[in-house]
Amino acid sequence: MSADAAAALIGSGSTVGMSGFTGSGYPKAVPQALAARIEAEHAAGKLFRIRVWTGASTGPELDGALAKADGIEFRLPYNSDPIAREKINRGEMDYFDMHLSQVAPMAWQGFLGPLDTALVEISGIRPDGSLIPSSSVGNNKTWLDRASQIILEVNAWQNPALEGMHDIYYGTRLPPDRVPIPLVRPDDRIGEPYLHCDPARIVAIVETEAPDRNLPFAAPDASAHAIAGHLLDFFAHEVKRGRLPTSLLPIQSGVGNIANAVLTGLVDGPFTDMTAYTEVIQDGMLDLLDAGKLRIASATAFSLSPEAAARINADMVQYRDRMILRPQEISNHPELIRRLGCLAMNGLIEADIYGNVNSTHVMGSRIQNGIGGSRDFARNAYVSIFMTPSTAKGGAISAIVPQASHVDHIAQDVQVLVTEQGLADLRGLSPKQRATLIIEKCAHPDYRPMLADYYERARRGSYGQQSPSLLREALSWHQRFIDTGSMLP
Amino acid sequence: MSADAAAALIGSGSTVGMSGFTGSGYPKAVPQALAARIEAEHAAGKLFRIRVWTGASTGPELDGALAKADGIEFRLPYNSDPIAREKINRGEMDYFDMHLSQVAPMAWQGFLGPLDTALVEISGIRPDGSLIPSSSVGNNKTWLDRASQIILEVNAWQNPALEGMHDIYYGTRLPPDRVPIPLVRPDDRIGEPYLHCDPARIVAIVETEAPDRNLPFAAPDASAHAIAGHLLDFFAHEVKRGRLPTSLLPIQSGVGNIANAVLTGLVDGPFTDMTAYTEVIQDGMLDLLDAGKLRIASATAFSLSPEAAARINADMVQYRDRMILRPQEISNHPELIRRLGCLAMNGLIEADIYGNVNSTHVMGSRIQNGIGGSRDFARNAYVSIFMTPSTAKGGAISAIVPQASHVDHIAQDVQVLVTEQGLADLRGLSPKQRATLIIEKCAHPDYRPMLADYYERARRGSYGQQSPSLLREALSWHQRFIDTGSMLP
Repeated sequence: MSADAAAALIGSGSTVGMSGFTGSGYPKAVPQALAARIEAEHAAGKLFRIRVWTGASTGPELDGALAKADGIEFRLPYNSDPIAREKINRGEMDYFDMHLSQVAPMAWQGFLGPLDTALVEISGIRPDGSLIPSSSVGNNKTWLDRASQIILEVNAWQNPALEGMHDIYYGTRLPPDRVPIPLVRPDDRIGEPYLHCDPARIVAIVETEAPDRNLPFAAPDASAHAIAGHLLDFFAHEVKRGRLPTSLLPIQSGVGNIANAVLTGLVDGPFTDMTAYTEVIQDGMLDLLDAGKLRIASATAFSLSPEAAARINADMVQYRDRMILRPQEISNHPELIRRLGCLAMNGLIEADIYGNVNSTHVMGSRIQNGIGGSRDFARNAYVSIFMTPSTAKGGAISAIVPQASHVDHIAQDVQVLVTEQGLADLRGLSPKQRATLIIEKCAHPDYRPMLADYYERARRGSYGQQSPSLLREALSWHQRFIDTGSMLP
Repeated sequence: MSADAAAALIGSGSTVGMSGFTGSGYPKAVPQALAARIEAEHAAGKLFRIRVWTGASTGPELDGALAKADGIEFRLPYNSDPIAREKINRGEMDYFDMHLSQVAPMAWQGFLGPLDTALVEISGIRPDGSLIPSSSVGNNKTWLDRASQIILEVNAWQNPALEGMHDIYYGTRLPPDRVPIPLVRPDDRIGEPYLHCDPARIVAIVETEAPDRNLPFAAPDASAHAIAGHLLDFFAHEVKRGRLPTSLLPIQSGVGNIANAVLTGLVDGPFTDMTAYTEVIQDGMLDLLDAGKLRIASATAFSLSPEAAARINADMVQYRDRMILRPQEISNHPELIRRLGCLAMNGLIEADIYGNVNSTHVMGSRIQNGIGGSRDFARNAYVSIFMTPSTAKGGAISAIVPQASHVDHIAQDVQVLVTEQGLADLRGLSPKQRATLIIEKCAHPDYRPMLADYYERARRGSYGQQSPSLLREALSWHQRFIDTGSMLP
């Protein structure tokens, strides 16, 4: 069927569960056709908006096109599209920023409402009707199981050798029928390589041949290398103390140039036979696989540069045995993250002197992307690490502030904080012990005296002394940035 | 051995892992003897302080006596003792307020430092050397396994029929050797009834005959009954919609008069064959057991009034088959809470209009008790419910504020908010949708117009519109309370 004809099957006000996770495996034709239809309806004076559920972020052909058409009424669980972000921050689109592990179970729980359409990219359909997943798995199993009607995009651009890489676990249930998930190593395969769906609910199959959105690789800068250096020293120290094995524990890593600097650092580091149990497979992991340092990379999606995508596509059969793509409820499942003992490494927007972390809201109110899977990992990790340059906007913003303007990760779940200035190992410390260390190790020299001064005065003037604060000043740095463009006086 | 002689075996600067959870099963003689020794040392001009680890809160003979003697340098993971609280809030004692499920695994992880002494109350020693646990299990297994030396208090006050009630799971490991915990029903017994320890490390056995600290039952007031009523209506609604079974799902309940009002309400409610998978067994659970409505109560400790303690002690053999006491790492384990699908009901200090919850810090800096197990449950619950009267201090404090002055539970983990004013079902909503509902349903009429006014102005003047805020005012209600004694202008 044509993409236009398929898009005509989606009604205004309906909920559409789409594939897609960090620019991989999202539908590329029907969302654009739908956006064109919405624009035409709006031009004719008719309101046409849908509710969009996905795996995580997608590409400009999906979030960008639909947001531009003003066609999204409600969005979950994650967005990084700049057009959609603007709509959200102008208050024109409702956005429910969710823990990624909870999307599928909450869809089953029922309170999110019915799912009208599943719109899922796959890489092929087998003779028995089973589906070969694409370059991300996300929530596709759940969308296919729950939706009233199914639209498939079969993307011929995807590598046929993807077949066999996926591990789709069909053992999840609602309580009281939940049982242990039988995964004890990142390498374990506990499901099957294919997705299934009821053929009677398939209303359209659309053929495409379009690339994933692979963003250029941003080479790590000096700050990223410094952060990676501090972190590798920490790992080495923990191994020396007997608190981590020489193969470390399964790595979870966010995306971006700091994460890639860490992974690149591990290529030359002393650790061997490592594993990754994470959300996405990014460029640096290919280097680790090539170097023979990484035994297995388990995730729910690829998140690669064009160069890395070309590299993996040229040699997919060889990589396939050392990669597993799973549903995001399994890649991010708290039971498994706790059991495996992941080393969680995530970025942040700001941390306060007690180590409460804001990952989502610039100046407390403006959403950047979303919490994503960071909390799935941080809350259950063996060591929960957060990394950031100590300043942003050329020094106008300090990443360390008196009080976080929004909190996504509470102090108890932030165990190690790293900036290019240094690493603060906060494990086992009281709030005041944490504050002293964070100011000393992590703050930028331009802001360190200001933070020390605030803390010293809070040690005298605070209402209580468990986590001393001066409420009149606690958020004043943010207000100063809004007023003057800089947190510096 | 005498308590004095046993106390003499504990050195200044050492770390002592003690039993005790909400006033049950804590050591009663040696801590008091140690406090006397510390006072004598201090009188002689010598500094003597220890680091105290426990299950959770304890009794005045432990936290109270040691804090009064200025003998605690560092405390984890929870405190509710008023003398210790004052020391902490004057900045004289370091307090690491921890997730209760994480205490044991973090002690094994090693970064908390060595454990010098285990000081554990038990109810008896069997001929084979195994230990009959007392009225709480807490972290006793871990303290006995990890400590260099062991001091036992054998308390003859404890009911001999406690024997057989406990389920001590010895299957926990550090990664990469962790395996699924084989518990799929709250009734499951996966361990054994006894604790074990290396007899060579036992340096003292002290006999006691002293009651647990059983606090008088505070009868629910009208506000507590109203909150319970809203919550029971919600459960009935969820059953009617097919989103909960008629036996509900395993209940987790905090302590206090609101929790008891909910449990009392369930006695007369339509739900049958219920289960509880929770931290403590309180008065209301006995009523549910007696009424035949509750099949099993699984917890880590008792938290009973003197009347309920007498009632259970008179009939322990009969109750024993329907109660299980487990280590707190199992009663609060995220893997099990998620699998069982607990209905988590916890109290709070304040929630903001977006539903971020502060459970610990009055006016953002003064610790009340601690986060306890609330986050273990809230983060992994099937439905995460928070309950509070809409005001405190005779109306001078609003429990609903523009911005929480400290965050323990982020909005994503707060799904239902209940006050005597009403219930806000926040599941699946964006921040702005949540704000409208919380102000309308939960705020007290004295504060509702002030909150609506703040929110309306934030909808215009905020930096971003995902979670609108006015940073100059966000914490001004707390400052006003500090300045004037009331949040009202």
